[in-house]
Amino acid sequence: MIYLDNGATSFPKPQEVADAVYEYMTKVGSNINRGGYEKAYSAAEVVLETREMIDSMMNGYGARNAIFTPGNTYALNFLIKGLARTGDRFLTSHMEHNAVYRPLHQLQEDGVIEYECMPCNELGQLDLDKALDMITPDIKAVVMLHASNVSGTILPIEEIGKKCHEEGVLFIVDAAQTAGNTPIDMQKCHIDGLTVPGHKSLLGPQGIGVMLINPAIKDEIIPVISGGTGSHSDMADMPSELPDRFESGTLNLPGIFGLHAALKWVQEHFDEVRAHEEKLTARMLEGIANIKGVRLAGIPTTEGRVSVVSIDFTEEDNGICAFNLEHTYGINTRVGLHCAPLAHESLHTFPEGTVRFSIGPFNTEDEIDVALKAIEELALASNV
Amino acid sequence: MIYLDNGATSFPKPQEVADAVYEYMTKVGSNINRGGYEKAYSAAEVVLETREMIDSMMNGYGARNAIFTPGNTYALNFLIKGLARTGDRFLTSHMEHNAVYRPLHQLQEDGVIEYECMPCNELGQLDLDKALDMITPDIKAVVMLHASNVSGTILPIEEIGKKCHEEGVLFIVDAAQTAGNTPIDMQKCHIDGLTVPGHKSLLGPQGIGVMLINPAIKDEIIPVISGGTGSHSDMADMPSELPDRFESGTLNLPGIFGLHAALKWVQEHFDEVRAHEEKLTARMLEGIANIKGVRLAGIPTTEGRVSVVSIDFTEEDNGICAFNLEHTYGINTRVGLHCAPLAHESLHTFPEGTVRFSIGPFNTEDEIDVALKAIEELALASNV
Repeated sequence: MIYLDNGATSFPKPQEVADAVYEYMTKVGSNINRGGYEKAYSAAEVVLETREMIDSMMNGYGARNAIFTPGNTYALNFLIKGLARTGDRFLTSHMEHNAVYRPLHQLQEDGVIEYECMPCNELGQLDLDKALDMITPDIKAVVMLHASNVSGTILPIEEIGKKCHEEGVLFIVDAAQTAGNTPIDMQKCHIDGLTVPGHKSLLGPQGIGVMLINPAIKDEIIPVISGGTGSHSDMADMPSELPDRFESGTLNLPGIFGLHAALKWVQEHFDEVRAHEEKLTARMLEGIANIKGVRLAGIPTTEGRVSVVSIDFTEEDNGICAFNLEHTYGINTRVGLHCAPLAHESLHTFPEGTVRFSIGPFNTEDEIDVALKAIEELALASNV
Repeated sequence: MIYLDNGATSFPKPQEVADAVYEYMTKVGSNINRGGYEKAYSAAEVVLETREMIDSMMNGYGARNAIFTPGNTYALNFLIKGLARTGDRFLTSHMEHNAVYRPLHQLQEDGVIEYECMPCNELGQLDLDKALDMITPDIKAVVMLHASNVSGTILPIEEIGKKCHEEGVLFIVDAAQTAGNTPIDMQKCHIDGLTVPGHKSLLGPQGIGVMLINPAIKDEIIPVISGGTGSHSDMADMPSELPDRFESGTLNLPGIFGLHAALKWVQEHFDEVRAHEEKLTARMLEGIANIKGVRLAGIPTTEGRVSVVSIDFTEEDNGICAFNLEHTYGINTRVGLHCAPLAHESLHTFPEGTVRFSIGPFNTEDEIDVALKAIEELALASNV
């Protein structure tokens, strides 16, 4: 089997990740902030170190502003719904995942906010001039992804962040496809809220993610989830302190232990993995350029993109091709709309969608070559 | 070390639980509903079986109405905030955890709902006559716990559910302290929404829980979290179908695999564990009754309670006693308000709180005896 669905979830993970989860579950087991006993304190140290590592990797605003979430979708809901007030206006891009699009749409349908999409071209690139013009002081927040989960196209967060900062507009970035494979500087890009899944390029387990916020806006964000925090338990109100304000209930400690091990591995291998994925992506893109009956959705070079490569079989049904990729060639991909109808509209692949190959740190050149050969054979099938 | 904090999170777990998580992380790894490849389908089978097992254990409304959540606090927020509309009136008990109290308070402060507490006595028991009188057709929902996390007192969910059903009032039950150790019959008790943590008496990992709902009310519940569901990806609205409507984003699959193994173990050992915990609780309660300087908060017999035992050291500081329990005797307990100020008000232990001993399937009679001896020595310390 050749696994090329790392954009959905990375696999395999470094061995240390499963080991850390197992170690927690069999040897530690305790809650933090809930017991006064020593094991709880040692678990607390791992939790704090994990916050420190992710905060440092993203140049955030300090470890206590790195909030654990059950995943990236939760984090985006926390920020979007936590900030939205009646009459607010939001901006987003025309490349978004449903994790941004559906919460915005839901709030608009409920009559709470209005939102507009900053336009994107057929390569998935933001029309920067138009986008900058749309960022005006009457906008509450810009919410957008860093890189597309369909085409891999990177959006210009530094330029958008700078304009947001100048206009007093909050800036929320969904780093689902970049955290762990692309440098992110929260402060330099003036990001007020950054959402990070643990289980994609950060190589941790599913079920854990992080939301990093600018503490200046913490009290503006109403907790979407409220409950016991193990702090100020006599208060009916949620505490203002971070991370407690946004961490009600028992934390996913096996997940945090796994993420802790994963972050260590990613930090040690960051440049090496980045170069490896870029090399494999280049090989994939060059190969696809030479195959008839296939159209690439996105940028044809490695510049300005991550290692997510989507194609449309122009003469064949994408669903059947993805099925055959698995059953004939043993290649795992993902076909369809990838929960991102807006992106497919920009890329002109709506409603048929694409077959997506997403490359991870443990893929090899040989695997890319096998995939390219399979694509070629499937694309030519109707001509045979 | 003697672990008596199973009310916070159970420890140890059956070995099969960590093994299942490890197996998923090292051998399976894939997402479900996101890839078309075979590994995704086999993961999907484990996910479905887990829904079936929990649905069957709770006599719910079918596997697809068993929705995975990141934990019990999330589930309670999903139900309370998902159902609340401007002008609604809610009822709850005066024994609640902050996972119910804080969301209700938050909605009331925001001017959305009003809520009232059904009164409870010093043993934590609901004043049933008064409670039944309060359940009238103008109430939107009754939200209450099944057993107190402070005193272990069981609340009469069958009687309350029957009255709710008669009056057309929705009934939401927080089974944090009973799921896995006490039989629950969702249909017989007319429960519309049941929330279940995976990591307490169900013996699964932290970070996974289940919300079981009556599908008749699914469209009344606005998804608190919206995003990609891998279904109807072209729609900006959240799908109506269950479980998708309430399961946006990548599921915590390591957690689900762990819960799957845990549920199997719990099903096989249910009666045995129940008898064991009752025996140990009886021993603990009898011992405490004979110790001077200690007051039990709650019911003094095993009738009408679970194996959570809270005491107040009347002559000593509870915090210092809990510290000494750990450092001198190696006994892990939990001291303070247990995120449940309302319960401590009813039990007349507010604001000083209690020291809580919560018994699990792997505790032994010897451990209870050691704990009793330690309590006696600490209670007498000031008299020495």
